[in-house]
Amino acid sequence: MVSVEAVERTAHDRTAAAAVIAALAPRYGNRLSTSPSMREQHAHTTTWLGNQPPDAVVFPQSTEEVQDVVRLCAAHRVPVIAFGVGTSLEGQVNAPRGGICLDFRDMNRVLAVHAEDLDCVVEPGITRKQLNAHLRDRGLFFPIDPGADASLGGMAATRASGTNAVRYGTMKDNVLALKVVLASGEVMATARRAKKSSSGYDLTRLMVGAEGTLGVITELTLRLSGIPEAIASGVCPFPSVEAACNATIMTIQSGIPVARIELLDALQVRACNQYSKLDLPETPLLFVEFHGTDAGVAEQSERFGEIARELGGGPFDWATRAEDRTRLWQARHDAYWAARSLRPGAQAVASDVCVPISRLAECVTQTQRDVEASRLFAPVVGHVGDGNFHLSLMVDLADDDEVKRAKALLERLVERALAMDGTCTGEHGVGQGKMKYLLAEHGAPALGAMRAIKQALDPLDIMNPGKIVKL
Amino acid sequence: MVSVEAVERTAHDRTAAAAVIAALAPRYGNRLSTSPSMREQHAHTTTWLGNQPPDAVVFPQSTEEVQDVVRLCAAHRVPVIAFGVGTSLEGQVNAPRGGICLDFRDMNRVLAVHAEDLDCVVEPGITRKQLNAHLRDRGLFFPIDPGADASLGGMAATRASGTNAVRYGTMKDNVLALKVVLASGEVMATARRAKKSSSGYDLTRLMVGAEGTLGVITELTLRLSGIPEAIASGVCPFPSVEAACNATIMTIQSGIPVARIELLDALQVRACNQYSKLDLPETPLLFVEFHGTDAGVAEQSERFGEIARELGGGPFDWATRAEDRTRLWQARHDAYWAARSLRPGAQAVASDVCVPISRLAECVTQTQRDVEASRLFAPVVGHVGDGNFHLSLMVDLADDDEVKRAKALLERLVERALAMDGTCTGEHGVGQGKMKYLLAEHGAPALGAMRAIKQALDPLDIMNPGKIVKL
Repeated sequence: MVSVEAVERTAHDRTAAAAVIAALAPRYGNRLSTSPSMREQHAHTTTWLGNQPPDAVVFPQSTEEVQDVVRLCAAHRVPVIAFGVGTSLEGQVNAPRGGICLDFRDMNRVLAVHAEDLDCVVEPGITRKQLNAHLRDRGLFFPIDPGADASLGGMAATRASGTNAVRYGTMKDNVLALKVVLASGEVMATARRAKKSSSGYDLTRLMVGAEGTLGVITELTLRLSGIPEAIASGVCPFPSVEAACNATIMTIQSGIPVARIELLDALQVRACNQYSKLDLPETPLLFVEFHGTDAGVAEQSERFGEIARELGGGPFDWATRAEDRTRLWQARHDAYWAARSLRPGAQAVASDVCVPISRLAECVTQTQRDVEASRLFAPVVGHVGDGNFHLSLMVDLADDDEVKRAKALLERLVERALAMDGTCTGEHGVGQGKMKYLLAEHGAPALGAMRAIKQALDPLDIMNPGKIVKL
Repeated sequence: MVSVEAVERTAHDRTAAAAVIAALAPRYGNRLSTSPSMREQHAHTTTWLGNQPPDAVVFPQSTEEVQDVVRLCAAHRVPVIAFGVGTSLEGQVNAPRGGICLDFRDMNRVLAVHAEDLDCVVEPGITRKQLNAHLRDRGLFFPIDPGADASLGGMAATRASGTNAVRYGTMKDNVLALKVVLASGEVMATARRAKKSSSGYDLTRLMVGAEGTLGVITELTLRLSGIPEAIASGVCPFPSVEAACNATIMTIQSGIPVARIELLDALQVRACNQYSKLDLPETPLLFVEFHGTDAGVAEQSERFGEIARELGGGPFDWATRAEDRTRLWQARHDAYWAARSLRPGAQAVASDVCVPISRLAECVTQTQRDVEASRLFAPVVGHVGDGNFHLSLMVDLADDDEVKRAKALLERLVERALAMDGTCTGEHGVGQGKMKYLLAEHGAPALGAMRAIKQALDPLDIMNPGKIVKL
């Protein structure tokens, strides 16, 4: 376990939290817990960042209850941390100053589906798989798919994306409006249900990606897509990461509306073969998918196959059978577990960066060389259509020297991405883990603007404090 | 001319502006003007809102010069108003408290085109047609097309969109990053060139649509699209506005990736026939366009034709010849002038609202009935794929009673859109003209959040004051 910044909790902090808990306990009964295991489960558990539990976990059932908790916390200056299912990777749910964790387990309803408008209204605790199960009979789906079965509230808060982002965009593009409880306890509606608007500041996009530091999301209006009439997908081997990246660039430049285009490096393919019982060629691969009509996906698949051939790749075997597709994408979604299985007992440390796609091959190959030179073990998977890739470092935490080499590698990964006009995180968010990079990435004026906004909307610094920017 | 809110300019305001001008004059020479006609041309000229000229117009040539002007204005608390080509419709460029207008005429270069990344970097003064002329040889284009040949800086500032938005999104979706001079004079880069990021608050989207009230845009990184291999377009008549709207809904629900789908009501068709020498049937029409491969656009056109037929519309005659297409879309872009030509001498007052698409037919037909009952003259055109439509009221300003009826009609138009979960403006922005609707649309908590953000980033209220929110 790697320590996160130690925060001295003052006697005042503890007394204040105790006062809030005492006030909440009679109202929430068994929907409030202060048990150590419950608290620990509600702090960071997914990577090597330390676990910093809240003082209590509350399970609200309505926006009014969230307002109630936030008002009480504001009165006592106690932190409020929103929690979906806890799959974030950068310490977003940690409680460095303690406080009250709001677990949205009980707020997971679909409040409305407007099929004609291709939108729906949901509570933040629903997960993406639950939502898609609900929508399937209407012929609709919500396309954003981070690896985990995350909650929609958490996905909005961290500006999540995933394999479909190349075609459908990220959470920023698929949230139409939010209901947000502000630090004052007021409920703000960020927008109407109209598909577009130029009325005032874009509060929706300000809240998407703010990781709960500007308010707590209690309702989301999401943009939906129709389930495509036909889906074709397949695997295409390439002689090198460069060739695979170049094929991706050409595909996108040609205007082929690829729905998913995912890179796995040879090491990751080996992991997937073992874990998911596949027999894929152990070279860099692209997993590709097309959405459209029968004729459309056939045409797109053929054209992609030609591009791959031009770049020395292929053959591109594609199919439209749902079973083949499910097996393939299940393997892709299990890539993280597959990588872990290659080195049992190691802690997985997942990091992601995103660069302009023209720099992607260079960034990935330099990183692979760096991994090798650092004597580390780290398969690569990438949402290459967006220039975004993940490094899954498998680290033996008992080996101090290895931990040191791993930390240094991750620093260089971010430096490399920034030097290529990229970002320190394409989709995992900032949390605690990447705060240290924000100055280098954004510069002092932008970071100052973020801080000014935080100060303006949360002057008491109670909304998920210690994440993104510090006051 | 309808009066805008009168602002008492204090002696201090005038003295301060004079001091700024005195300091700027020797540095900017003939790139600074205080001539009455120049000042008047740089204030609002496009609708019935009054003209409120700045004290001087400056033509900067670099971000540093913009910083220079902003710092001087900050020191004297003098307003700074950014100006592109002045085609905004809600008084965005008016100077109710006077101040310095920054005209970006001389900052209109393309700084970089990254074809592999499908992006480019431009200065704010370049217009969309200039940019597209520059990009054509690379096989790329920038899809956002408000009616006017607006500047990119102005388009970003007002969160503009247009006919392609149904497929390509609005400015919010097509600006990757901005360089912005803040009220402090600091230059902020809102983001990197990576296609996506989850690193910190979304400052790009905060600045897009802020109408220069939070800072002055001096550089834009824009997302580009490949010019489609094939384009098919055509006109489809419908027996009613409802039938045309329902065809639009079915088209989008079927996943047909329509690039443009524009409604003209019968009155607007008559205007276009006269003005553009066409012989279209004078019933509600959809102008429709598809982008893709030859096979793709043919398939999409056929499927749209079937949908139209099901709803009593058609025939849908489509073609892929560039000449036919150009003639058609030129007529669509001239719709405003065509409408004006139907009633020479009248002032055109253009307003737009946007509602969930399921409510669009109802909103348009109620509005048409209201126009008739109000004895007014107002053709309708709509970006119906987005639920957005424009009313071009042709008003005889000499007729007080008609002006009164027109104003009342516009109030009811917004009320109607808001009652349908819509917005008071889909793409024209707020400026001065629509500030009065923001409370009803957004509610006090959201409007309070906007005001808090404005206060945080522009505490002296010098950035385009008197627009969107007042401090």
